[in-house]
Amino acid sequence: MAIASIEKLTTQLARLPGVGRKTAQRFAYHLLGVPEEQALELADAIRDVRKNVHPCPICGTYTDLEQCEICSDPKRTEALICVVCDAKDVMAMEKTREFTGRYHVLNGSLSPMNGIGPGDLRINELLQRCDGGQVKEVILATNPDVEGEATATYIARLLKAKGVTATRIAHGVPIGGNLEYTDEVTLAKALEGRRTI
Amino acid sequence: MAIASIEKLTTQLARLPGVGRKTAQRFAYHLLGVPEEQALELADAIRDVRKNVHPCPICGTYTDLEQCEICSDPKRTEALICVVCDAKDVMAMEKTREFTGRYHVLNGSLSPMNGIGPGDLRINELLQRCDGGQVKEVILATNPDVEGEATATYIARLLKAKGVTATRIAHGVPIGGNLEYTDEVTLAKALEGRRTI
Repeated sequence: MAIASIEKLTTQLARLPGVGRKTAQRFAYHLLGVPEEQALELADAIRDVRKNVHPCPICGTYTDLEQCEICSDPKRTEALICVVCDAKDVMAMEKTREFTGRYHVLNGSLSPMNGIGPGDLRINELLQRCDGGQVKEVILATNPDVEGEATATYIARLLKAKGVTATRIAHGVPIGGNLEYTDEVTLAKALEGRRTI
Repeated sequence: MAIASIEKLTTQLARLPGVGRKTAQRFAYHLLGVPEEQALELADAIRDVRKNVHPCPICGTYTDLEQCEICSDPKRTEALICVVCDAKDVMAMEKTREFTGRYHVLNGSLSPMNGIGPGDLRINELLQRCDGGQVKEVILATNPDVEGEATATYIARLLKAKGVTATRIAHGVPIGGNLEYTDEVTLAKALEGRRTI
């Protein structure tokens, strides 16, 4: 009763993040039910994205140009680099419209449990970018979890040795949040990071 | 900042059932991050499934053969046809290992609200299959919702006119269920369908 092509497609779809076998099967039958062009459009979109898009050789965000738009933008200051774990985080940062420096994507965070050490991240590339003397400050915007904090601390130490200022994004109560429902670690961080108004 | 290829892939992925823009974006970045072969394997699996798999001309389930395995199996009785809304439902039925007849997939259920009338379902094909006089009973296993019930009632009337017995699968308390948490409509159906033990 099992059809090899459907099985194969289900297996491939189940490799998507957060997709189990049941959902993958639902996707597979959906792709069988839609007009053929629509299914092939998805197949082509996957091929196209892998053909056209690659990490920017400087900062590591995805781009379809030789260098990404931010790295080629002369209006962006080279004195300030914002370090993030993931290419998606660059998009989140850009949405703030507050940041006028450059980016550097690490492609993950330090995680000894998962065998991810400094050599697996783009840390050397970051240090090389700081070598010219143009970079004055590096903002460490890794995720506010154990691994992100460890990564930030590790990189900050290396930057200090180079004489580059390393800063960490603020932790605290999110805007629109509710004190009652804020966890105690975040609240403690919010107290610790209090500022005169 | 938006990259055309990523945007296009996100749009295509967001057409999958239950996938919103945010999840589609997550899938797109996942497909950018995995080894190229893995992403292309998914693209190929979609192409292959559309090239190799098609509905069985008799019953409407998906198959990579000229006729599906069930329709070509001489051990399956032709006197009994189980009517389901969706090709996936055939798999669910087959898992019971209780059914030895043939299937007929309607490709949906009657839904005037969504503009789905009898002409949009494979009802004529079902009636043609009943023409030879070999079919004695048609089990209507459409979903136990308003549309499925309406579809079953509609088809039962047409079959009666042909002298074919139409039966409906039983409604009741599911095995492993709990009376306390069973809704009143299901309980009423369970009472109505009570049998001597």
